[in-house]
Amino acid sequence: MMEGQNNRRWIFTRRPDDGDVRACLRLETAALPELQEGEVLIRNRFLAMDPAIRTWMDDVPNYRTPLIPGQVMEGTAVGDVVASRNARFKPGDVVLGVHGWEEYSVGRAGFFASQVLPRIDGIACHHFLGVLGPTGVTAYFAALDKMQPQPGETVLISAAAGAVGSVAGQICRLKGARVIGLAGTDEKCGWLTEVCGFDAAINYHTRKDDLAEAVLEAAPHGVDIYFDNVGGEIFDAALDAMKDHGRITLCGFISGYGNRDGHPAPPVRNLWQFLIKRLTMNAFLLTEYTGRFGEAIQEMVPWVRGGEIRHREHIVAGLENAADAFLMLFDGRNEGKLIVEI
Amino acid sequence: MMEGQNNRRWIFTRRPDDGDVRACLRLETAALPELQEGEVLIRNRFLAMDPAIRTWMDDVPNYRTPLIPGQVMEGTAVGDVVASRNARFKPGDVVLGVHGWEEYSVGRAGFFASQVLPRIDGIACHHFLGVLGPTGVTAYFAALDKMQPQPGETVLISAAAGAVGSVAGQICRLKGARVIGLAGTDEKCGWLTEVCGFDAAINYHTRKDDLAEAVLEAAPHGVDIYFDNVGGEIFDAALDAMKDHGRITLCGFISGYGNRDGHPAPPVRNLWQFLIKRLTMNAFLLTEYTGRFGEAIQEMVPWVRGGEIRHREHIVAGLENAADAFLMLFDGRNEGKLIVEI
Repeated sequence: MMEGQNNRRWIFTRRPDDGDVRACLRLETAALPELQEGEVLIRNRFLAMDPAIRTWMDDVPNYRTPLIPGQVMEGTAVGDVVASRNARFKPGDVVLGVHGWEEYSVGRAGFFASQVLPRIDGIACHHFLGVLGPTGVTAYFAALDKMQPQPGETVLISAAAGAVGSVAGQICRLKGARVIGLAGTDEKCGWLTEVCGFDAAINYHTRKDDLAEAVLEAAPHGVDIYFDNVGGEIFDAALDAMKDHGRITLCGFISGYGNRDGHPAPPVRNLWQFLIKRLTMNAFLLTEYTGRFGEAIQEMVPWVRGGEIRHREHIVAGLENAADAFLMLFDGRNEGKLIVEI
Repeated sequence: MMEGQNNRRWIFTRRPDDGDVRACLRLETAALPELQEGEVLIRNRFLAMDPAIRTWMDDVPNYRTPLIPGQVMEGTAVGDVVASRNARFKPGDVVLGVHGWEEYSVGRAGFFASQVLPRIDGIACHHFLGVLGPTGVTAYFAALDKMQPQPGETVLISAAAGAVGSVAGQICRLKGARVIGLAGTDEKCGWLTEVCGFDAAINYHTRKDDLAEAVLEAAPHGVDIYFDNVGGEIFDAALDAMKDHGRITLCGFISGYGNRDGHPAPPVRNLWQFLIKRLTMNAFLLTEYTGRFGEAIQEMVPWVRGGEIRHREHIVAGLENAADAFLMLFDGRNEGKLIVEI
């Protein structure tokens, strides 16, 4: 076996304050423990950088237990089974799970190594961290189960060039909706309209001061469905562009993660528009769909292979760069699903 | 006829700033004009003081056109038809409509004198400004059409001692729900539990610092439905006390009316709870139900006469006191539906 093998790993050292979140992370090297009955040893190959990880660092009520200072950082990863004392896994299996930010993970309780990935022609294993992974499955069920776009409806999506927004928008287009994306650079906007087939894309930095007007230029009759991944001022502007009886699906609040008042969502001021337009709002959380990943992947694989859903991955090489890479999510420097190759 | 008769009336002189809103109102006396073909002359007897009137004073997007400086203040009133050149009305009819804050109103375009009130034993005409008027009908449709309480569900209501909240809560109880009210004085809380039959009531001033805990003491399993008339910090606390998959109906934002940033709703910070609990939210606006008042009144009259719905009216005498009375709404000094007797 491999016990005693050196394992580089990122430790979550303390809860964040207002400063640089990298101060809460430390790279260390530790020896691998001996594999116990029921456990599996995984060599991690790719690690997903997801914005929601930031919320796990705070001691706030959340959809999962917060990280505990001293533990290995957690994140969704793809890896190879190297050794197994668990009948569900055999060496050579490629698995997806909530592993650590580390070269090797030893599976306790069979939790993190939750599924063996299928081998599919034309699909790389790291696609299961993005377009066919948690973000892609989020886009799939958020679009089809929560937003339910109808042919001819206008859909507005924030963080539209992100791993969730870009896929959700393309699924809405496949269902016959018009789709407008909000993104933070002209390059991202160009990718949305020229590659992903969005009907329009708006740079929310250059149109910051009249964002609702910019949306109404692209959708003169207003927005039927708003898919929000950002919160705060962009949410407020979207409300100004909604039609009466429009619908909103909340999926994330990347602009607010790291708020220091215990609320990982930025303040929203414009609910008056929600009232006078008689809007409705629901919320998407992936934990509600954990048993249904296969259903989403089965429908999405042909779309991905056929080019009906375009995606891009931003792969950063080296586990040692994980902390720097994580920060890119919050200033929008990544272009596509951000993945660390270990 | 009565042309030339002196008519005391409140003029809306200018849009409010941060100061006392009474500075935007002026009482004057003017002569009544001659009645034109199609018009009706009404002697107003009772005038409803409704919080939403405050939003009509600002130049913000609203569910109706804003008041224009120089015009007579508007408000829902009950009055007697004194003279009519309109076949729909005859002298002696008691009418309800959006009249002016004035002794006499002359009806242009037949709009304000929208309906002749039925005469019902045991029902005073001013009840049609409260429990059987716009606030009571709001409570009826908000409860039955938007909140849809099921037997055994727990309903939380803000501004619960108000004209909308108190009636909505009693309707939810008639449908088998447990109802918890939030109100601003112990006297109001006592009225809710002892007279209106609420299962619990919480003074949101004395429990300001741990309001969510106070709600969870009254509803240990959490809240299924939150009916919000306040917004802001109370909305945020309610989110902390909601069950997974709970539902919210927005009906008003009295704590925010008069905000000077163009948003007549106070900021909300806690949408993270909305997301992780996968809540849903809709909104009630009475304009959606203008054709259905009769349906609500027909069902509510027996409830009111039979004492199944209790209500109280806070009647202030004298049109000259209308501006002072209006302010009472915003510091919660009124006890019951606030009405000015002209």
